[in-house]
Amino acid sequence: MTDIADSPPSFAANCPVPLTDHPTVQMAHGGGGRMSQRLIADVFASAFDNPWLREMHDGAVLEFGGERLAFTTDGHVVKPLFFPGGDIGALAVHGTVNDLAVCGALPIALSTSFILEEGYSLEELRRVVASMSKAASSIPVPIVTGDTKVVDRGKGDGVFISTAAVGRVHPKAQISPRHAKPGDVVLLSGEIAAHGIAVLSARENLGLEGVIASDSASILDLIWPLFDRFESNLHVFRDPTRGGVAAVLNEIAMAAQVGIEIDEVAIPVSEPVRGACELLGLDPLYVANEGKCVAIVDATCADAVLEYWRSRPLGKMASRLGVVTESHPGVVTMRSTIGATRVVDLLSGEQLPRIC
Amino acid sequence: MTDIADSPPSFAANCPVPLTDHPTVQMAHGGGGRMSQRLIADVFASAFDNPWLREMHDGAVLEFGGERLAFTTDGHVVKPLFFPGGDIGALAVHGTVNDLAVCGALPIALSTSFILEEGYSLEELRRVVASMSKAASSIPVPIVTGDTKVVDRGKGDGVFISTAAVGRVHPKAQISPRHAKPGDVVLLSGEIAAHGIAVLSARENLGLEGVIASDSASILDLIWPLFDRFESNLHVFRDPTRGGVAAVLNEIAMAAQVGIEIDEVAIPVSEPVRGACELLGLDPLYVANEGKCVAIVDATCADAVLEYWRSRPLGKMASRLGVVTESHPGVVTMRSTIGATRVVDLLSGEQLPRIC
Repeated sequence: MTDIADSPPSFAANCPVPLTDHPTVQMAHGGGGRMSQRLIADVFASAFDNPWLREMHDGAVLEFGGERLAFTTDGHVVKPLFFPGGDIGALAVHGTVNDLAVCGALPIALSTSFILEEGYSLEELRRVVASMSKAASSIPVPIVTGDTKVVDRGKGDGVFISTAAVGRVHPKAQISPRHAKPGDVVLLSGEIAAHGIAVLSARENLGLEGVIASDSASILDLIWPLFDRFESNLHVFRDPTRGGVAAVLNEIAMAAQVGIEIDEVAIPVSEPVRGACELLGLDPLYVANEGKCVAIVDATCADAVLEYWRSRPLGKMASRLGVVTESHPGVVTMRSTIGATRVVDLLSGEQLPRIC
Repeated sequence: MTDIADSPPSFAANCPVPLTDHPTVQMAHGGGGRMSQRLIADVFASAFDNPWLREMHDGAVLEFGGERLAFTTDGHVVKPLFFPGGDIGALAVHGTVNDLAVCGALPIALSTSFILEEGYSLEELRRVVASMSKAASSIPVPIVTGDTKVVDRGKGDGVFISTAAVGRVHPKAQISPRHAKPGDVVLLSGEIAAHGIAVLSARENLGLEGVIASDSASILDLIWPLFDRFESNLHVFRDPTRGGVAAVLNEIAMAAQVGIEIDEVAIPVSEPVRGACELLGLDPLYVANEGKCVAIVDATCADAVLEYWRSRPLGKMASRLGVVTESHPGVVTMRSTIGATRVVDLLSGEQLPRIC
């Protein structure tokens, strides 16, 4: 975060350090920040350009058989493969199901592509697969098709899992990052940053395992039931994974060309996570979550959505985070606990590599 | 291949060497032979069990909006990334489109999940992406959603690509590996083994680059137009990738519990590929293809399908390979050029690692 006075909305373009003028892939290209965005824009989106990609959503919505079909994919390279509160298998299911959920869709089938490293323990692979199976059964969604490849020792890292999913979009859902409009309310479904800290702690042996667990979970229950009641008053849903809440708010502000203003005091963070973040010099707003939901809804239904969320096990700590404004389009600002207003910028690189 | 006299249909179960009693992943688990099958059966299919997986097809067919939706995925880890006749980008599109095609489906959208290695050349990544884009445009099918992850240097191998695809199943298609029936005819759309040999040659600098190119291509045109004419007389389609024609024929024989008898003289192999296979000690029947189709069709339409194939650029060398029989269910046999009959067994491991 930088002070708003030194940070005009156009500073990204004026940044003195070239962000993607690297000749090679950097870890930060996968971090969910500005370098990720530029890689996607420069290399992928320009080559594959089509209306679905331009939508910049977590999945694509296609017309099929007179209904709307949502389609999404996610690669999973989390390290370590097992961490408090989850593992790569459960994550591969939840991540992809959540991408469908934020498109307003109910998953109907998953696919899975395993890339295994020669020498990886088959016993551990069975544990990963059992966890995937359990996570999928609890949605419930069947894993209907898959593929397995093996790469030489030293050319992979145990197991990578790319899942894809198809789902049925709720007939009343009218969801798009571009639907955020001035006057809308920004909601957050619970305490943030647990996933990133749990993975980091497991990787670096920080000793937080007993205290902080990943929030890895399906958020379908926080989204799907809302459409019948609130229909097109629900404007945007996003799950704040890589890059955290800061990244998704920035993406929405840019896509809809609106401003977003949030209150620091309204950001739910558990005490252990807050303490760990302070110790590690991390801002929880940028740390990944795997079972949280950000919603941008019409002001008329904000209280009711919040009430519904708080009635659900995953939404007990849900919070009204802020509002959408007409001013400073494309920029997210935060009123700090001491009353100052600052820009919540996208990070250039990343805080934590390989957290999903 | 082993002599039929020493190889009763049950030899797989009686094999004296335990095939999957390895505690870790072996390269052969990815080779498309018996070890791949056992890994899939023991680790994945048992954990994810559902009617779609039990179908043992290259993709799943789901009901959606009153139509049939085909859904498939494939990981791509080919090494080297560029080879005569193709590259990992084109392969990632063709492989997935072909998996849909053999389900009787026309692709409507692709997803792509990139796993990039830190330090991988962005210039080369652009070439891969441009090739994907070109291959997808020529189908045509849009790449509507994607994901990018980055792993540390030495934990990947440049780029891995997992693609998934959804497609519309032809209303008249009734395709399943289990639909092969005695009396059916086995057809093959062209000269085999070029892909595997081209990749091997590029990897090992065998100097065949000017002579042998991969057959990487979409086979949609060889399949989709047939349904209007031949409807449910088209019983099975498969693309013989890893494990080659031998693997798909064995899979069909096992799935339908029928015998398959083929003629060695009917197997189309180009002279350069035949020469390279002899030199390298490889059997072309086990070498991967990426633009070929095996069909099992009712005898009444075999000539017409063959005639149609031969009228298409990709099918000029199409051949009537053999027949489906009631005898020796689950076993594929071949009459050799000298008139002897031998079992065409699944390989235990693999001939060529990382060819797709």
